[in-house]
Amino acid sequence: MSALETIGLVGGGVIGAGWAARFLLNGHDVALYDPDPEIARKLGEVTANARRAQAKLMPGVVVPEGRLRVAGSVVDAVGGADFVVESLPEIECLKVRVLAEIDRAVRPEVVIASSTSGLLPTRLAAGMERPERFVVGHPFNPVYLLPLVEVCGGVRTTPDTEDHAAALYGRIGMRVLRVRKEVDGFIADRLLEALWREALWLVNDGIATTEEIDDAVRYGAGLRWSFMGTFLIYRLSGGEAGMRHFLAQFGPALKLPWTHLEAPELTDVLVELVAAQSDDQAVGIAIRDLERKRDDCLVAVLGALRSQDYAAGAVVKAHERALLDRGPKPESDDEAAPLTTWRGRVLPDWIDYNGHMTEHRFLQCFGEASDALLRRIGVDGDYLGRHRSFYTVETHLMHLGQGAPDEALVVDTQVLAADPKRLHVFHRLRRAADGAVLASAEQMLLHVDTEAGRSIAAGGVVLDAMVHLAQVHAALPRPSTAGRCVGAARR
Amino acid sequence: MSALETIGLVGGGVIGAGWAARFLLNGHDVALYDPDPEIARKLGEVTANARRAQAKLMPGVVVPEGRLRVAGSVVDAVGGADFVVESLPEIECLKVRVLAEIDRAVRPEVVIASSTSGLLPTRLAAGMERPERFVVGHPFNPVYLLPLVEVCGGVRTTPDTEDHAAALYGRIGMRVLRVRKEVDGFIADRLLEALWREALWLVNDGIATTEEIDDAVRYGAGLRWSFMGTFLIYRLSGGEAGMRHFLAQFGPALKLPWTHLEAPELTDVLVELVAAQSDDQAVGIAIRDLERKRDDCLVAVLGALRSQDYAAGAVVKAHERALLDRGPKPESDDEAAPLTTWRGRVLPDWIDYNGHMTEHRFLQCFGEASDALLRRIGVDGDYLGRHRSFYTVETHLMHLGQGAPDEALVVDTQVLAADPKRLHVFHRLRRAADGAVLASAEQMLLHVDTEAGRSIAAGGVVLDAMVHLAQVHAALPRPSTAGRCVGAARR
Repeated sequence: MSALETIGLVGGGVIGAGWAARFLLNGHDVALYDPDPEIARKLGEVTANARRAQAKLMPGVVVPEGRLRVAGSVVDAVGGADFVVESLPEIECLKVRVLAEIDRAVRPEVVIASSTSGLLPTRLAAGMERPERFVVGHPFNPVYLLPLVEVCGGVRTTPDTEDHAAALYGRIGMRVLRVRKEVDGFIADRLLEALWREALWLVNDGIATTEEIDDAVRYGAGLRWSFMGTFLIYRLSGGEAGMRHFLAQFGPALKLPWTHLEAPELTDVLVELVAAQSDDQAVGIAIRDLERKRDDCLVAVLGALRSQDYAAGAVVKAHERALLDRGPKPESDDEAAPLTTWRGRVLPDWIDYNGHMTEHRFLQCFGEASDALLRRIGVDGDYLGRHRSFYTVETHLMHLGQGAPDEALVVDTQVLAADPKRLHVFHRLRRAADGAVLASAEQMLLHVDTEAGRSIAAGGVVLDAMVHLAQVHAALPRPSTAGRCVGAARR
Repeated sequence: MSALETIGLVGGGVIGAGWAARFLLNGHDVALYDPDPEIARKLGEVTANARRAQAKLMPGVVVPEGRLRVAGSVVDAVGGADFVVESLPEIECLKVRVLAEIDRAVRPEVVIASSTSGLLPTRLAAGMERPERFVVGHPFNPVYLLPLVEVCGGVRTTPDTEDHAAALYGRIGMRVLRVRKEVDGFIADRLLEALWREALWLVNDGIATTEEIDDAVRYGAGLRWSFMGTFLIYRLSGGEAGMRHFLAQFGPALKLPWTHLEAPELTDVLVELVAAQSDDQAVGIAIRDLERKRDDCLVAVLGALRSQDYAAGAVVKAHERALLDRGPKPESDDEAAPLTTWRGRVLPDWIDYNGHMTEHRFLQCFGEASDALLRRIGVDGDYLGRHRSFYTVETHLMHLGQGAPDEALVVDTQVLAADPKRLHVFHRLRRAADGAVLASAEQMLLHVDTEAGRSIAAGGVVLDAMVHLAQVHAALPRPSTAGRCVGAARR
């Protein structure tokens, strides 16, 4: 692969810094100019956030980062660039002037893009000598995570320019939406702006607070909008009869004062246009299948937010707890059974490129199970403070099944042996729903003096507790894979 | 706990059937009347979808379902009910008439709720003898998954009625938004309706198709709206300066023709109101913390959608594959030496309470080393796209030393054996500074058909490459701990 394009950025606010982070994390060198004296600090903070998010989103994917250079002027930022992005405030005369300056400073074949949310590219290019290489590429905050970019050319923009920009955006993981008609606000911001202005009216008229308005979206329609737009969602609201039925049922509501915005006349022509386009969107997919896709995505999104204990996820989590309290109680603590040492769920950032829980997360669960076992036998903060602990020295893992996103899991633990220096345990990670074993871990833990860095005999309550557990668990069947080595024939 | 309320439902369309499913899955008995001759089949299908979604959302949570009865009339549905929900089409005169009928049929203390999206409760109660027990409870489709319900009383509704309804909605897992001023469209639908009408204008004016409009939301702002509303999101867009800065920067855009909706005048009073309410929303949380919460939620949601290979999740998945193809390949100067498969540093969040690199992070390094080895033998995005991959089935870990914060580490890998189905490797994690081995991992990887979920013989360049490596590495000394089981005497 040839070297990646060097990117020249002008403007380093929330959007410009977000572009810098996305390009850097995809391996592009970036030069950025912003007159803000604190620009280097701000870029560092945004890039750190982006790096953190990227590591969580794609664990195990290692891409060498590009180099960031804070430039001393517009010309310095764009002079050596292979692609330029302008992200200045939405002031048309400012953008026109700086875009003309950029146009004079860069090589003739270099594409220049503006991040404007809604100003018209034909007008923005007014001062450029080569408007044919100018295009709008409108991203969404945070630019390093949200994939959407609207690409819109002006009257003199060439198709090659649009294609070139779209291809580059695609290579840095973005979803390009071609805006085919140049219009104020393009497509996305016209929708966002309508909702935003109505929201301002609600505050202005004393109907609701900003928090209530936010809640009205994030606990409801916002959850759907994370994966399906308004038209497909409303098609499903039409039930089996689809979009025509929905328009027939809710068409009259378009005349009601349910917003400050007047709807277009719902003529037969418009109904036919919307219904036909909606049919195209859903072609070949039965309504019940679309409903299940919607539900699967909603379950996935709600589960993801539950892992964050945030917004609708916090509601689901609290409800789940309440339902658990109403459900059958867990079996009483039976000492002659393996101990339940861990309960949890497969979190979103535990999923690898194969779509399953990645291998080291299994060991994380087992490590946390060992910690719970250690707490039970008396290894607490006070014990650690006296420089005593257990270190794992050896582990044998068996992978027997897959962990699916958000799946509930449980670990049980059997103590195989204990002596003053060693604790020998066997963990099983099970799917909570049916008890199927997904993985096992046989582990040897060594009792150590953490200050001296060597093993030392345990004593007192800790030794008593571990020996007691080993004696009680000796009555349990020995796991068939205990003592196994890698590659032995499966029993 | 006392027996749960019996729910009387009138109207079994998409909303009424969704209510039935939510109540049933929370253990409530339900009686529903709808004149549709196919109502029983439709209710069965919606409830089946809801049951499926609930099992995925809360596996292991077992709640005995309530009983569903298809009633023969309005009176039959509500006569024995403890709570009534009307979900008829949005035709005011129809709702007024049926609500009056319901009012006459139910016990005087029973609360009657309407699912209307935006008709005024005072007007809907016009024909009722006891309007004080009438309230709007406006849910969102699919009712069995989306938590939001707007509660709005009319002028004669008592606070007790609103509280009673809100408490019941809370018990079935919903997030209640109290609409404090009775207004057409309440809060949520005013926002949704503004966006919907602007969307219809875009189709009407030939700017975009229904699919393009949907994409403009679901790949961008829709992802944010699943957990944060417009005001909090825009506060973050204001960067460190917050909402006042955002309004100063984007206030002028409210005058631009970016939607058909005219904004309210952005007076000093309105700016102060919005900014103060926004401050209240974010009180006590630093902007960088809010940004990280936003990013964590976005990562979680994107990861959830990746597991569905849908919408923005499909974009992330494709990009991840492309980046994997660009990832570092093992260095290969000397084929007759173990391959260097990983280089990195001990990161801050890898440190456990003992002050050292925690055990599962060792396995993370080894997993990434295996990924690099796999890329070298030809397992790339294209290969994964053809549903072929390797899964780790067994691992033996030896911990021989500690990883200190920020220490540079390197993994080398020796192929012990390879056949069409199995790849047997031995990794050593070394301190880069002095080459001391801190841990080793012996692993067995199985070649799999990821679609069928079973092992399958590898072939072609992948098999050739792995067999070649095994042959070359056969000349290397066999690691002394290969084939070791946990607890064997140390050699």
